[in-house]
Amino acid sequence: MSDPLLPVLAEIARQFEASVERLAAFLRIPSIGTDPAHDADTRRAAEWLARELQTIGLDASVRPTGGHPMVVAKGGAPAGPRVLYYGHYDVQPPDPLELWQTPPFEPTVVAGPHGPRIVARGAVDDKGQLLTWVEAMRAWMRVHGTLPVPITVLVEGEEESSSVHLEPFIAAHREELAADIAVVSDTNMLAPDRPALTSMLRGIVYLELTLEGPSRDLHSGMYGGAVPNPLNRLAQLLASLHDARGRVAIPGFYDQVRPLAEADRAAWRALPFDERAFLAEIGLEGSVGEEGFSLLERIWARPCLDINGIWGGYSGAGAKTVIPARAHAKLSCRLVPDQVATQVRDLLIRSLHERCPADCRIAIRDLGCGDPIRVPTDSPFVAAARRALARVFGCEPAMIGCGGSIPVVASLRRLLGLDTLLVGFGLDDDRVHSPNEKFELVCYRRGIESHAALLAEFARLGGQP
Amino acid sequence: MSDPLLPVLAEIARQFEASVERLAAFLRIPSIGTDPAHDADTRRAAEWLARELQTIGLDASVRPTGGHPMVVAKGGAPAGPRVLYYGHYDVQPPDPLELWQTPPFEPTVVAGPHGPRIVARGAVDDKGQLLTWVEAMRAWMRVHGTLPVPITVLVEGEEESSSVHLEPFIAAHREELAADIAVVSDTNMLAPDRPALTSMLRGIVYLELTLEGPSRDLHSGMYGGAVPNPLNRLAQLLASLHDARGRVAIPGFYDQVRPLAEADRAAWRALPFDERAFLAEIGLEGSVGEEGFSLLERIWARPCLDINGIWGGYSGAGAKTVIPARAHAKLSCRLVPDQVATQVRDLLIRSLHERCPADCRIAIRDLGCGDPIRVPTDSPFVAAARRALARVFGCEPAMIGCGGSIPVVASLRRLLGLDTLLVGFGLDDDRVHSPNEKFELVCYRRGIESHAALLAEFARLGGQP
Repeated sequence: MSDPLLPVLAEIARQFEASVERLAAFLRIPSIGTDPAHDADTRRAAEWLARELQTIGLDASVRPTGGHPMVVAKGGAPAGPRVLYYGHYDVQPPDPLELWQTPPFEPTVVAGPHGPRIVARGAVDDKGQLLTWVEAMRAWMRVHGTLPVPITVLVEGEEESSSVHLEPFIAAHREELAADIAVVSDTNMLAPDRPALTSMLRGIVYLELTLEGPSRDLHSGMYGGAVPNPLNRLAQLLASLHDARGRVAIPGFYDQVRPLAEADRAAWRALPFDERAFLAEIGLEGSVGEEGFSLLERIWARPCLDINGIWGGYSGAGAKTVIPARAHAKLSCRLVPDQVATQVRDLLIRSLHERCPADCRIAIRDLGCGDPIRVPTDSPFVAAARRALARVFGCEPAMIGCGGSIPVVASLRRLLGLDTLLVGFGLDDDRVHSPNEKFELVCYRRGIESHAALLAEFARLGGQP
Repeated sequence: MSDPLLPVLAEIARQFEASVERLAAFLRIPSIGTDPAHDADTRRAAEWLARELQTIGLDASVRPTGGHPMVVAKGGAPAGPRVLYYGHYDVQPPDPLELWQTPPFEPTVVAGPHGPRIVARGAVDDKGQLLTWVEAMRAWMRVHGTLPVPITVLVEGEEESSSVHLEPFIAAHREELAADIAVVSDTNMLAPDRPALTSMLRGIVYLELTLEGPSRDLHSGMYGGAVPNPLNRLAQLLASLHDARGRVAIPGFYDQVRPLAEADRAAWRALPFDERAFLAEIGLEGSVGEEGFSLLERIWARPCLDINGIWGGYSGAGAKTVIPARAHAKLSCRLVPDQVATQVRDLLIRSLHERCPADCRIAIRDLGCGDPIRVPTDSPFVAAARRALARVFGCEPAMIGCGGSIPVVASLRRLLGLDTLLVGFGLDDDRVHSPNEKFELVCYRRGIESHAALLAEFARLGGQP
């Protein structure tokens, strides 16, 4: 019996230039979901995707929500393991604009050490990765007229803005979205020829705080030294959140953290991860952070706290001698099992209130939180994914963690009872959330091939050849 | 022999409405010296002033510099003590615009507890105060046809932007600017009916720093906990600049500070200064600062360090999970005798470099510095000023300090050998450098009268009646 995957791989090869053109078309749409000025563009991206899925032969539609719409599609075989593919069509804001070498929404293919790469906001997060399974489905449909298993597609437009409408939508469409496994491509490989499955995601708590001292901006000569300066106070407050050993200095913060398993430590030490190159790519020589942990351990298995933004007072040219009434910061914690996001959020808020100096007032806003995730690695679906990746790459995938958060994974578990296969094709130096974000075309190609192979392996789980 | 001052005071009363109109015309010109977009407006303010001085009967001109022009005028009696009047026609930027109740460059007279007040950017700093002596000269010229002593006027346009061209101009025009005493109106009274002479000004050192960690902005999930975050580092750096007792924690910072004289402490304790009202006006209940010093002592006689601006990372709506490559701050120290501004600046810069963490790079810019000033209080000119103010107000002026800096006072001493009479008509609640800056019309009126009386007293020093 011939292998149904082979002609699909050939079709993928024939159509790869067209697949790159389609990715470029998708990237040209500035679907900056957090910016109301781009609401029409964000909607346009949803409609573009729904049209592509319809063209492939799936039953696709754009579904309204209270915010950006969902794209939902269904198709494939009438029986077999049901697979739910999730992605997001919204992208991060591109600022700072002046640091882009090519315009963020004019996708440009440039040469790189791994061959050509496409540069644009959203190239890898998430449009390029999303299209790896869309193009795989396209090739499969073209060759075989159907997909080998029943599939559902769910793509949202608010992943970069806390997915406010996702859970209500999932809860309201449980039957339509029911599946046996979810697939998300939004994580990394170790290298273009070294595939990986991600089994750990950090959680997140994100807060914004405003510190208020005097009731108005003050002249720093007329008042300096005799009144509380919210900027001085904010620096002190934020500095107090870490100790000298790189640990978060909030009592109770680490209470729920599961200790690192020796098996994990050993496995990660054995990975072909080039720490020096990883740091050199961002201009650093050594990793700094919590004492006693390696770089990978810090990113994959330890919580942390980062200030993401700070502002207050005068930031224009020259000197303005002001004591501002208000100072502001945005900060976020990354969480690991078994921390519970809402509990850490409450702990953090309480602690910030406690350490707010008596001569200031603090206001704190919750900008979103999500639990850390550990996905089981011993399921038949993980085994299927391992085989699919080994088929394409010629080697087993590494099992890795991820420092980032993908909150939908927790939502899918909680609302639909689904585990998620995190099979991604990004690289560490893709510059997600930074200027000059890129996606290697060799990774795009292998991603499409891997998803085609994954569909074949899913079908075999259901008893197909 | 009749008192030459009386008819001048009557003229001032007759012309006061016109004096207010002229102040409003001056205030309408948005002479924001630090903003190149307003260069034409700033020049227009200089030309307006020169025209007014010419109209009064002085020999006035606009003099080019490498930046904003100087306004120079001469006139008055051929003999007697020569008086140099200094002011500045540039104003602070008005931001934040949304907090102004009336537009900053549409001067509006509103009612207040002391009667009407005029609200605009520059109302008291410095256009209103500057016009107190201009209008006094106008009235004197109108009544007597000349001024009772030789006077020179020097008004610059860069006081809010570090007066870059002032010293070179003074040095290049020593003969033209030669005088026996300088007069500056840019300080405060205790109350509309309680005049003051200022004998102490703080100095200033102003720096801007940039902290750089990674070579680009990073995704805080993919890197958080394993790399230096310049925002975290900046908070720690800035927080380290103070200790728990409110003192600046830079070794050597206080070495040159002259201890507070018991006579000063006693004199200031006896002033009718309402600390509670002073703080309540800015929404505070208690003064905070260096342990062991009262509010006035902290502002007038102790140095301090204030962060004036801080920025870095993401400050827009919602959440962006970034670790920025750079973090920035502007900070300034106020200095007291006998601190030397350039030495404190060098100490501060050295200390900032030392406490810059090894995993970051720091860049520091000097945005200007000026020495603290203590003006002698036992000169015949001070005695003349005391008599003039007693004449107008019916009580002796208090001798007070000022928390702010007026760097020209040091320049005049160094380059022209001049002491400066700091006779001002502002109030603590005038909101200098803040939105809704105002000048009480009763203070404007009494300021004009006081300068008229001062001219009379100067003439008596020279032997005139």
